Amino acid sequence: MAKGVLYGVSVGPGDPQLLTLKAVETIAACPVVAAPRTRDGAMVALEIVRGALDLAGKDILPLDFAMSRDAEERAASHRVSAEKLRERLDAGQSVALLNLGDVSVYASYRYLDDILAGEGYATRMIPGVTSFCAAAAALGVSLTDMRRPLCIVPDGGAMADGFFDPGTSYVFMKSGRNLPALLGFLEERGLLASARVVQNVGLPDEKIYRSVEGREINPDYFTVVLLKSEGEARG
Amino acid sequence: MAKGVLYGVSVGPGDPQLLTLKAVETIAACPVVAAPRTRDGAMVALEIVRGALDLAGKDILPLDFAMSRDAEERAASHRVSAEKLRERLDAGQSVALLNLGDVSVYASYRYLDDILAGEGYATRMIPGVTSFCAAAAALGVSLTDMRRPLCIVPDGGAMADGFFDPGTSYVFMKSGRNLPALLGFLEERGLLASARVVQNVGLPDEKIYRSVEGREINPDYFTVVLLKSEGEARG
Repeated sequence: MAKGVLYGVSVGPGDPQLLTLKAVETIAACPVVAAPRTRDGAMVALEIVRGALDLAGKDILPLDFAMSRDAEERAASHRVSAEKLRERLDAGQSVALLNLGDVSVYASYRYLDDILAGEGYATRMIPGVTSFCAAAAALGVSLTDMRRPLCIVPDGGAMADGFFDPGTSYVFMKSGRNLPALLGFLEERGLLASARVVQNVGLPDEKIYRSVEGREINPDYFTVVLLKSEGEARG
Repeated sequence: MAKGVLYGVSVGPGDPQLLTLKAVETIAACPVVAAPRTRDGAMVALEIVRGALDLAGKDILPLDFAMSRDAEERAASHRVSAEKLRERLDAGQSVALLNLGDVSVYASYRYLDDILAGEGYATRMIPGVTSFCAAAAALGVSLTDMRRPLCIVPDGGAMADGFFDPGTSYVFMKSGRNLPALLGFLEERGLLASARVVQNVGLPDEKIYRSVEGREINPDYFTVVLLKSEGEARG
């Protein structure tokens, strides 16, 4: 029997209308829909998809990814998820594995693709809208300045290491618990006035901060901080 | 009479199936569809949209953006385009202005939004799939490594200035005429072996180079070069 194909399907950051035509078509064609589930049972990517198409009749496969800092713990959770996917693929069923945002940008999908493609299974990625592009659109701003680089920094990191360059624009994403430290870093350098923040973009509890100074901002996994380059690059 | 709204609609990098549901809905609702036109008359963004929805009955408005290095020449071409858009908005017609890739990433849309929003017109951005996310999906790779930054570098630039950091992943886009210099830079530093190239992703003449060494690569405006960070960040 022919094995199923694993599709890594990007569902965008929150608004179901930001699914691509290809994502909708791919999910519709797969009998199995796999999606990450957090420890409290939430399946955000799945809920986004439910807003765009009917999943009645689909076999829903929740995957529990460990968000641990411990590499072995994470690897073990990937092996468990890969085993669940392998069962369906071996049974000839194609699987749409849903990913928040885009599947090539800090996505756990990569580990499962590595494991299963390494074993000879066919895998395909369907690109999508990133949270930072959606955050820029919600703010009505550009992420970039002409001819200047744009740097995407995950986990609230890299700033303390002399990484910061005033001629570069920045996106900070997945800052989580490091968000207060990141905002503190920006404040120390007089950059807080030019930072903009969007939380849970496109989701029901979206919050948009056009200015950050003096505001109380709760650390949240789905926080995007935008910082434009300084100086006159627009011309 | 109520004025029309200017929508900056991202159409993705090439495959019509990578339009979002929201992009299709927005274009369908606008009587006027504006799109950039190159000097040789090509309207790539418009052709992508034609692959996803019927534009019969739409008023098509070609915009000629000067791709000059001269700031005044570019500004003059933006003023001409803004005037064309203003006419339609003043007549109460909403306009879908099409943008290749995503409208917040190195997009000329920004200049028109600045001009028209500055005059009080309502403007809205619809985010979309970037060329670099689509290139990663076509290659079946991740753009990023866990906890490592991702830097998007336009115009083949910034590398010569001590900008390069081996702990960062890079995307080089819109390299155009600078592509040979960029590839030469990577070769000198022994990085060419880890570079991957996608040209015209999702368009009929898509080219995928999983390795670059010893290959002849034509400079092309729609070239994306991917370079992953070095070392052990995957774990």
